[in-house]
Amino acid sequence: MRLSRHFLPVMKESPADAQIVSHKLMLRAGMIRQTAAGIYAWLPLGHRVLRKIEQIVREEQDRAGAIELLMPTIQSADLWRQSGRYDDYGLEMLRIKDRHEREILFGPTAEEVITAIFRDNARSYRDLPRTLYNIQWKFRDEVRPRFGVMRGREFLMKDAYSFDLDVEGARHSYNRMFVAYLRTFKRMGLSAIPMQADTGPIGGDLSHEFIVLAPTGESEVFYHTNWEAERSLDVDADDAAALQGFVSGLTDDYAATDEKRDEAREAEAGDKLKQSRGIEVGHIFFFGTKYSQAMGLSVQGPDGSPVTPQMGSYGIGVSRLMGAIIEASHDDAGIVWPEAVAPYRVGLINMRADDARCSAASDDLYAKLQAAGVDTLYDDRDERGGAKFATMDLIGLPWQIIIGPKGLDKGVVELKRRATGERVELSVEDALAKVTG
Amino acid sequence: MRLSRHFLPVMKESPADAQIVSHKLMLRAGMIRQTAAGIYAWLPLGHRVLRKIEQIVREEQDRAGAIELLMPTIQSADLWRQSGRYDDYGLEMLRIKDRHEREILFGPTAEEVITAIFRDNARSYRDLPRTLYNIQWKFRDEVRPRFGVMRGREFLMKDAYSFDLDVEGARHSYNRMFVAYLRTFKRMGLSAIPMQADTGPIGGDLSHEFIVLAPTGESEVFYHTNWEAERSLDVDADDAAALQGFVSGLTDDYAATDEKRDEAREAEAGDKLKQSRGIEVGHIFFFGTKYSQAMGLSVQGPDGSPVTPQMGSYGIGVSRLMGAIIEASHDDAGIVWPEAVAPYRVGLINMRADDARCSAASDDLYAKLQAAGVDTLYDDRDERGGAKFATMDLIGLPWQIIIGPKGLDKGVVELKRRATGERVELSVEDALAKVTG
Repeated sequence: MRLSRHFLPVMKESPADAQIVSHKLMLRAGMIRQTAAGIYAWLPLGHRVLRKIEQIVREEQDRAGAIELLMPTIQSADLWRQSGRYDDYGLEMLRIKDRHEREILFGPTAEEVITAIFRDNARSYRDLPRTLYNIQWKFRDEVRPRFGVMRGREFLMKDAYSFDLDVEGARHSYNRMFVAYLRTFKRMGLSAIPMQADTGPIGGDLSHEFIVLAPTGESEVFYHTNWEAERSLDVDADDAAALQGFVSGLTDDYAATDEKRDEAREAEAGDKLKQSRGIEVGHIFFFGTKYSQAMGLSVQGPDGSPVTPQMGSYGIGVSRLMGAIIEASHDDAGIVWPEAVAPYRVGLINMRADDARCSAASDDLYAKLQAAGVDTLYDDRDERGGAKFATMDLIGLPWQIIIGPKGLDKGVVELKRRATGERVELSVEDALAKVTG
Repeated sequence: MRLSRHFLPVMKESPADAQIVSHKLMLRAGMIRQTAAGIYAWLPLGHRVLRKIEQIVREEQDRAGAIELLMPTIQSADLWRQSGRYDDYGLEMLRIKDRHEREILFGPTAEEVITAIFRDNARSYRDLPRTLYNIQWKFRDEVRPRFGVMRGREFLMKDAYSFDLDVEGARHSYNRMFVAYLRTFKRMGLSAIPMQADTGPIGGDLSHEFIVLAPTGESEVFYHTNWEAERSLDVDADDAAALQGFVSGLTDDYAATDEKRDEAREAEAGDKLKQSRGIEVGHIFFFGTKYSQAMGLSVQGPDGSPVTPQMGSYGIGVSRLMGAIIEASHDDAGIVWPEAVAPYRVGLINMRADDARCSAASDDLYAKLQAAGVDTLYDDRDERGGAKFATMDLIGLPWQIIIGPKGLDKGVVELKRRATGERVELSVEDALAKVTG
């Protein structure tokens, strides 16, 4: 994409109303703009990153055997009355009346809708187990939306729901998602630690929040230093026993949020215990027959008698992840995108758009990058070099290639790695090989 | 995907509440389920088609030079007060009050949001021309939602908005979209005819509806038989004069909806005039400075003086297109998907899941199809052959491969083309070559 034809409104100064670094950088890098309190438009650069994050989430859900569908944003209040949650949910639910005065709402989550769909369409034990997911916009009417997309009102969420014939099966479905979540976050360059979370009246141990460590995180967290090491996620998720062993092995290492601290286990960890702040990016939860029972979901079991399915739900904050990634990966000059979610892989800078030789060399390399299938943002504008450098550092593409008259005299271009700041001079061919390799 | 692990609830009978064939078939094929009046969940099969349609729309927008972003579903009433449309819009707008009693709404369209974004971020003539688009859910509170996704309340729309320095530039942007629309619909196997539409107080000739012919269409249309011929869409859209000539050449052939009939041109067409019904799948519209003026959008022109940009908007009903495609392409047995939007390319039927040899041969071919990157739905269920045939015909995949014991005795499988019903027996290798080729 040529920057001269793009829509990428960067800002030099941090907007006064942004308090945390990811919010500031997303505004400055022209990724988002607020259009109402806690509601954002995703400008082209932000939209590209959102789609890359979404695609990683999708691929790992598919790999875990979950099936994608899409539920609507607007739900009927009647469904929420069937589960008994309509009156309890409180002011975070955006309640609406349509032109016929029927009560509807903008879904904050979708347990009711999916349970109704499954109830009306699944008949027998052969229809289970199934895990269904969707990636759809949700709305929660936060009383004080803040921190940009980290605590907005309209947000993109991946929510999955599992249906099993028994608790043992449900635990296997849960474990599948447990590993899928670790894989998902790892692919985005994030280290997310699963922490025991509240199960409320359901009880048991099947509830985990996935927390990314960041000094600006909303909650205090405590964990064993083992969680700082790279972990292999190589396990056969179809083998229920092996998977259970794998998950148990991981959770043997202590990790807890402030509300779920365990003095005995902390004492055991001793000087391996660490404290930090964290951002919740995912939550998985087993809730048994809470919704299936309330909403009358039942299937014919293998022996002919009716079975009420065991359910779990599994959420990832897709739009929130963008903020979490920036909180975890930035420097004074701007964002430092992990390769897997970078909006473009390469930023190509023509230092002298008014110089025919520079422009010809830049156009030529741009064509080659496109032919090689490398996502490239080409700064072909007639601007000062300093402004171009600042923009590229701010938007944080993994590689920069700089073409200027002095280099061309020597037959070289400059290649810069954004993450390290390392710069090397090399031939156009070598630069091309490096960024495609 | 193995059907034994899928979520594909097909129905033998047509639901009583569905009046038109696309609605009936989408319900029967397990593509959609209504979750509230005029609001649908997209089950896995419907979701796959929706994403394929969306991707074709996206690729043709990108090719036309439009830049993708994403606007939120919820908009502020204040923005609509700036354009003066808030009070005029009527009951189709879903009006909402949030917890702080602020007036918000579920966007039925996004002229106001995009104009505000452009106003706050574009500064000079260098920022124009630009066409920005998004593919996002919209809501229109129809008084009587009907015909399934053809006239639902929550629907997926591609809406693009162009910003130009002068009317001549705007006409070029308009022509680009004109051709992009024809390309988009053609890729989906649809023949959509652009018909002059109302421009209201704006005047001029820059408003076209794109209409797919179908007996169940909502409007009466009239057109010259020339529109029945295949047309080349090969034109250099960067060359404004060539593009204008091309578009004028096309629109020389008469086509009009009931409201815009022209007696003189119909007389001229003589016995080449045809009458039919049609479904509107797209609408492009130039509206000058209507929103830019009302909302204070102005940029610095090349000579330093302020310029109020000329705007147009360009909509495609993405979810509605699915209904239109089915209306245009089905038979008594079910849907006949054009290849480009089919949910899977191949349906593989194991006729005897209880026969080890049949299952081994089917599993083996399924693995080969997957390895070759062919989207395949594999009916590995232990069901009667007749039910499997009926399901495959109903969901309308372009190719069926049928593996049964009699064929295996002869060393062949059966390959069926859904569109023609043609069946041939051939070796597994030849069948594979045929569906990958």
